[in-house]
Amino acid sequence: MMMIRTLLAVAMVSLLAACTTIPDVPPGTAVPIQIKEQGSFAAGGTMTTAPGAFDPRKPMAPDGQTYHGDHAYAFYQIPVNVRKMPIVMWHGAGQFSKTWETTADGREGFQNIFLRRRFGVYLIDQPRRGNAGRSMVAATITPTPDEQLWFNQFRIGLWPNYFEGVQFAQDAQTRNQFFRSMTPNTGPFDMAVLSDAVAAVFDRTGPGILFTHSQGGGPGWLTAIKNAKVKAIVAFEPGSSFIFPEGEVPAPIPSAFDTVQGAAVPMAQFMALTRIPILVLYGDNIPAQAVDLPAQDSWRARLAMARLWRETVNKHGGDVTLVHLPELGIKGNTHFLMSDMNNVKIADLVAKFLADKGLD
Amino acid sequence: MMMIRTLLAVAMVSLLAACTTIPDVPPGTAVPIQIKEQGSFAAGGTMTTAPGAFDPRKPMAPDGQTYHGDHAYAFYQIPVNVRKMPIVMWHGAGQFSKTWETTADGREGFQNIFLRRRFGVYLIDQPRRGNAGRSMVAATITPTPDEQLWFNQFRIGLWPNYFEGVQFAQDAQTRNQFFRSMTPNTGPFDMAVLSDAVAAVFDRTGPGILFTHSQGGGPGWLTAIKNAKVKAIVAFEPGSSFIFPEGEVPAPIPSAFDTVQGAAVPMAQFMALTRIPILVLYGDNIPAQAVDLPAQDSWRARLAMARLWRETVNKHGGDVTLVHLPELGIKGNTHFLMSDMNNVKIADLVAKFLADKGLD
Repeated sequence: MMMIRTLLAVAMVSLLAACTTIPDVPPGTAVPIQIKEQGSFAAGGTMTTAPGAFDPRKPMAPDGQTYHGDHAYAFYQIPVNVRKMPIVMWHGAGQFSKTWETTADGREGFQNIFLRRRFGVYLIDQPRRGNAGRSMVAATITPTPDEQLWFNQFRIGLWPNYFEGVQFAQDAQTRNQFFRSMTPNTGPFDMAVLSDAVAAVFDRTGPGILFTHSQGGGPGWLTAIKNAKVKAIVAFEPGSSFIFPEGEVPAPIPSAFDTVQGAAVPMAQFMALTRIPILVLYGDNIPAQAVDLPAQDSWRARLAMARLWRETVNKHGGDVTLVHLPELGIKGNTHFLMSDMNNVKIADLVAKFLADKGLD
Repeated sequence: MMMIRTLLAVAMVSLLAACTTIPDVPPGTAVPIQIKEQGSFAAGGTMTTAPGAFDPRKPMAPDGQTYHGDHAYAFYQIPVNVRKMPIVMWHGAGQFSKTWETTADGREGFQNIFLRRRFGVYLIDQPRRGNAGRSMVAATITPTPDEQLWFNQFRIGLWPNYFEGVQFAQDAQTRNQFFRSMTPNTGPFDMAVLSDAVAAVFDRTGPGILFTHSQGGGPGWLTAIKNAKVKAIVAFEPGSSFIFPEGEVPAPIPSAFDTVQGAAVPMAQFMALTRIPILVLYGDNIPAQAVDLPAQDSWRARLAMARLWRETVNKHGGDVTLVHLPELGIKGNTHFLMSDMNNVKIADLVAKFLADKGLD
């Protein structure tokens, strides 16, 4: 009878373990993602009240009415057996949470990949974008054809040609989904507004890891300065807004697209960036020397500024790792490392960084 | 030894069943939601090309560039052991997918509730709203204070007072989240554009059930006319756009807010609405007689038109069930039945309808 009990106990324990433990599994497999909790919320923002008194018989008059805006929106999922720190994923210019969801060619994005690796995942729309569209400042939105600009700027190729070996599927359906993953600003781009709201997201998540993409990089640095709950940053191809201590801003770097300029903050604020591990990643097809194509040349200038920034942060005791992927033999990546065809390899690289820094 | 094997087999089978089958569970429990697949996509929409030739050295000029817009955006989740038909959930005026997510007071919304009941769930943002913001038509967005209008119009109360027994939490944090669950139109409201895009969503989902809220009701009827894959509609407080056969449009119904008018379509189109089961639900605090408060009176007129519409559809062989919840003794519901404090009871009522119609 003792043996029966033992056998039953062993069987039940191992089966219960199979129920409640999800091992890290590759994306796209048939293994379900077990979600302990999921939901959405607004964070941060401000509000205003129109002068006068509200009259319920004149509801279309603003008198005495309120208006809430400039918050961030977050959709979050917490898997079972979740790791200690969640990841907050922040899109770039013209984009929204879709950046991290299904890729344009229909594979799993970083949302699912990191859920499967048992991280809590928060996808945000920054203030004045997508589901956080209620802006405190007016805007006019005009449907201006601009997709060839983005095709080039995002280093998919030189329209209508794709870069040789590019990590981006070359069919019409993928292009269609990719172009439809943009959504406009509903108010002016304002780094202070954005970083205030995302700092409020971290008040809700608790200590966590911030992933930024492109234009999200600049307000991402500010968010880490504003909220010590940002415990690490992985910046995917951060754009032009690198932050230096006052008096240490390097000379602007001109390019065929624009001029990349560092921004200054007081040293006490800057030092926040030296206290967390930071990984900065850039993809392929960034020229080493100046070229007269604005899209390519803009990234040469940005990568050069990123290197100066890494040196400055590390000189002050920081822990910035900058990886230009081709130097590791990882070729063909566009501006969208997180959704490129080799995005699992990119996720592996990021996961290793998080493990090395004790953040998983 | 036989007994041991039997005991072990029984234990393993019951535990494996616990692993692989999710029973219907109440929301907010600790039971994980097992997601077999989740992701997002754009559906439908159009595109335009600017005249001229694209010059990569002048990327800011629209010449020869394309612009994709007027698609819908959908985020979907398919649970394990999924039921036959998924549910596509469509928000109302000023809202987005948030309508179906976490409630303003932090409980589970219909997204989670119906996932737990093993339905596939697709949350959409209609064209020119939220994550589907890329509009083919320009718009100016002005931050006009309007929240007391919505507080009244959504029948939470008569600002600043709440209706007695209202199914809406009365704390400041809930109000804050509720007001921040709005996002503006990024282009004109156009029922043809909206229904084209959501019909394309159903081409992707296959045969399914459409939930509409408020202003989504009108384009929802058009979607069912355009795509026979819409196999049922549950309309939560549909607004003013009821669709009648030509020659059978009833007299307009004036209210203290606006005049509710039916729209006409050819009989052949109208008949599509007679071929699917439809459930229409309205909440509490809708006056039976005309009152001079626009918010209340608008719903008296809408409910009256909904009843005329039900009679017309059913007269032509349709299957419309209209439920005014107070008649069932369900009290205090606002315009947001799906997120009210009794939303599990509302979900039960909807689930029973789907079961009665053989749709689960």
